[in-house]
Amino acid sequence: MSHVLKGMRIVEGSAFVAVPLAGMTLAQMGADVIRFDRIGGGLDAGRWPVAPSGQSLFWAGMNKGKRSIAVDMKSPEGQELITRIITAPGDDAGMFLTNLRVRGWMDHETLSKHRADLIMVTLMGDRHGRPQVDYTVNPALGIPDITGPDRYDEPVANALPAWDLIAGNMVVSSLLAAERHRLRTGEGQDVELSLKDVAAATLGHLGMIGDAMLNDAARGKSGNALYGAYGQDFLCADGRRIMVIGLTGRQWAALVKVTGTAEAIESLGRETGMNLRDEGVRWQLRERITAIFRPWFAGQTAAAAGRKLDDAGATWSQFRTVKEAVAEDPDLSPENPMFEMLHQPGLGTFPVPGAPATFSAHARKPAAKAPALGAHTEEILGDVVGMTDGEIARLFDTGIVQSPNFAVSRNVA
Amino acid sequence: MSHVLKGMRIVEGSAFVAVPLAGMTLAQMGADVIRFDRIGGGLDAGRWPVAPSGQSLFWAGMNKGKRSIAVDMKSPEGQELITRIITAPGDDAGMFLTNLRVRGWMDHETLSKHRADLIMVTLMGDRHGRPQVDYTVNPALGIPDITGPDRYDEPVANALPAWDLIAGNMVVSSLLAAERHRLRTGEGQDVELSLKDVAAATLGHLGMIGDAMLNDAARGKSGNALYGAYGQDFLCADGRRIMVIGLTGRQWAALVKVTGTAEAIESLGRETGMNLRDEGVRWQLRERITAIFRPWFAGQTAAAAGRKLDDAGATWSQFRTVKEAVAEDPDLSPENPMFEMLHQPGLGTFPVPGAPATFSAHARKPAAKAPALGAHTEEILGDVVGMTDGEIARLFDTGIVQSPNFAVSRNVA
Repeated sequence: MSHVLKGMRIVEGSAFVAVPLAGMTLAQMGADVIRFDRIGGGLDAGRWPVAPSGQSLFWAGMNKGKRSIAVDMKSPEGQELITRIITAPGDDAGMFLTNLRVRGWMDHETLSKHRADLIMVTLMGDRHGRPQVDYTVNPALGIPDITGPDRYDEPVANALPAWDLIAGNMVVSSLLAAERHRLRTGEGQDVELSLKDVAAATLGHLGMIGDAMLNDAARGKSGNALYGAYGQDFLCADGRRIMVIGLTGRQWAALVKVTGTAEAIESLGRETGMNLRDEGVRWQLRERITAIFRPWFAGQTAAAAGRKLDDAGATWSQFRTVKEAVAEDPDLSPENPMFEMLHQPGLGTFPVPGAPATFSAHARKPAAKAPALGAHTEEILGDVVGMTDGEIARLFDTGIVQSPNFAVSRNVA
Repeated sequence: MSHVLKGMRIVEGSAFVAVPLAGMTLAQMGADVIRFDRIGGGLDAGRWPVAPSGQSLFWAGMNKGKRSIAVDMKSPEGQELITRIITAPGDDAGMFLTNLRVRGWMDHETLSKHRADLIMVTLMGDRHGRPQVDYTVNPALGIPDITGPDRYDEPVANALPAWDLIAGNMVVSSLLAAERHRLRTGEGQDVELSLKDVAAATLGHLGMIGDAMLNDAARGKSGNALYGAYGQDFLCADGRRIMVIGLTGRQWAALVKVTGTAEAIESLGRETGMNLRDEGVRWQLRERITAIFRPWFAGQTAAAAGRKLDDAGATWSQFRTVKEAVAEDPDLSPENPMFEMLHQPGLGTFPVPGAPATFSAHARKPAAKAPALGAHTEEILGDVVGMTDGEIARLFDTGIVQSPNFAVSRNVA
């Protein structure tokens, strides 16, 4: 029962969300993932959130279970070393993920001279190679304009770096697809994608490009309502807020039944001459529907409403702050086998997630800590590059490589 | 130059975002993806947005390039047919993706009796098997509480179904990882993940669980600011809004330089005794910084500011509505080779995206239309199940299967 990607070796030169997440996702499936950084740490070494010590919780979250090597990337010797790590032999090696767009020594053309079957996946900002980040792609494509309550007329940006998270997962599947091809043919390749193209394609997949071109009325803000059918948030008597869903016919029927509003809903249908079993009608009449449902929620605590919603088979959840969710929801604690309570040196002790997917032919890989920066420098030079102890010692002596301690680099450039 | 997953065959029994997106992503990489639906269409057949005709733009977006078969899933004969499609022979077949949690005839235990090396990937709502959707998972984990301007004290839900989009991409990588294992060992397996676990793990990856447990001050709302460093939106003289980023040292230096505020920023550092080259200090002083930058943006049009930001090498973008983005941004048009202008019968003509990733060893697969519901029923019964014309004719006659026309099913249950 080893892990599903056991034996695969990936090298990662990265910063921030998408590519670090890609490497970490592969590590959580059992791959040996080597992240290299410049000495002192990369651009994301101090990324927030930070622990009370000032050390980055973000960095620790994104680099769990990887091996870390710290190299003087400006020196020719350091660049040669990274080249050797990326292109080291091994049937299940020769794979490189990056969002550092370095022309010359670290591009596919140059690297593949050292290993012809190299698979390299590069994530760019946009397809023109310009830097873009989640926080710029999102407003450019219009998502903030449709986010938030309709009485608030300014754009509202995502708090979640959704595009980065999606792009990181596409880096994973692109790599696995390219490696599948290599397993069959021996052929490596250069794979490229951009954050903005990922976002633009997604708008298309969701039907939003067709909607913008074909429909006169632009989709506006609709607060916390579920778009296109019924779903709404309600305040309960104890001030706690609940989200309920009436997307499918079954969910809708459960909501009407549990709230005891069948008669009022039927009379709304009669009055408007519209069929509320049609999800689009529920969307159009959502404010009227919400007014009918509201007293039921306002008349009881969230806990009481929740019990009845569960009994009725409704789809619902309770709004929480992140702090409340971590404190109250067993799914975010070690009660969920995905989590382990780990102590991360310099940070503290908290629940750390492993992979969400379970594979019946493989054991679940326990959640892992992040390495200290450079923690595996010596062993990587030995087992991957094949250097002798003497060669390794010389690299440490000349400062081409470094081992811990992970000095908190707050990216003071 | 065929496509990277050419020859692979996947069967999909699905609805809504995540699993349909997974199948479509595999189809865009060249796999033969067969989606089966009940006659009349599945739960998402009428999902919004819809075209002026009332037909679903969403369904068309999520099912591009698949083959479609419509089967009476309630009849034993229809269930047997679907079983035969899922477990049909072929080295590169025997893979099934689903979010329809059907115990009995369509679970892994039963299906794998017909094909021992079956790979099945199931996406659930939560790990307990309870139904959850993006709109319920997101508030339960606290994202709406940190979204929106700080002067607005209600939770603000994502307009983008981010968790579904992430989970769908994890379904893809889970499938490819499991198939990699099967290619080497012949062993199939049952892979399970849940939408809520995907979201909970992501909070952990981003450092938010550690933050909630270790830091007293909860992360609050911060409007359109980039969290943890500097990044902010500004109104220009023409009323257009721009987002600028000062996350890395280089980005920050470009911003200070282009706005001509070096002196004011330096004096802010002196006054506060804080080092603004530290990204966390920029976050703490963001309101003071924004006040210093604001006049530069307010004094010129967005176009003029944009030219100067480009010249300075700053990272920035302009806020647009989706309609404006589709009308104005060449990256969302066929000028971008990812898009093709396609006519989708019953919907209209608009730019349709192919895959964001390009593979140097493979041609880019042109963007494809969605099938009409059941359009490939006859050919799938022939080439996948291996039925004779007579057997196929009988299934049509008895209503066990159906071919177009794709009657608009608005999910009127």
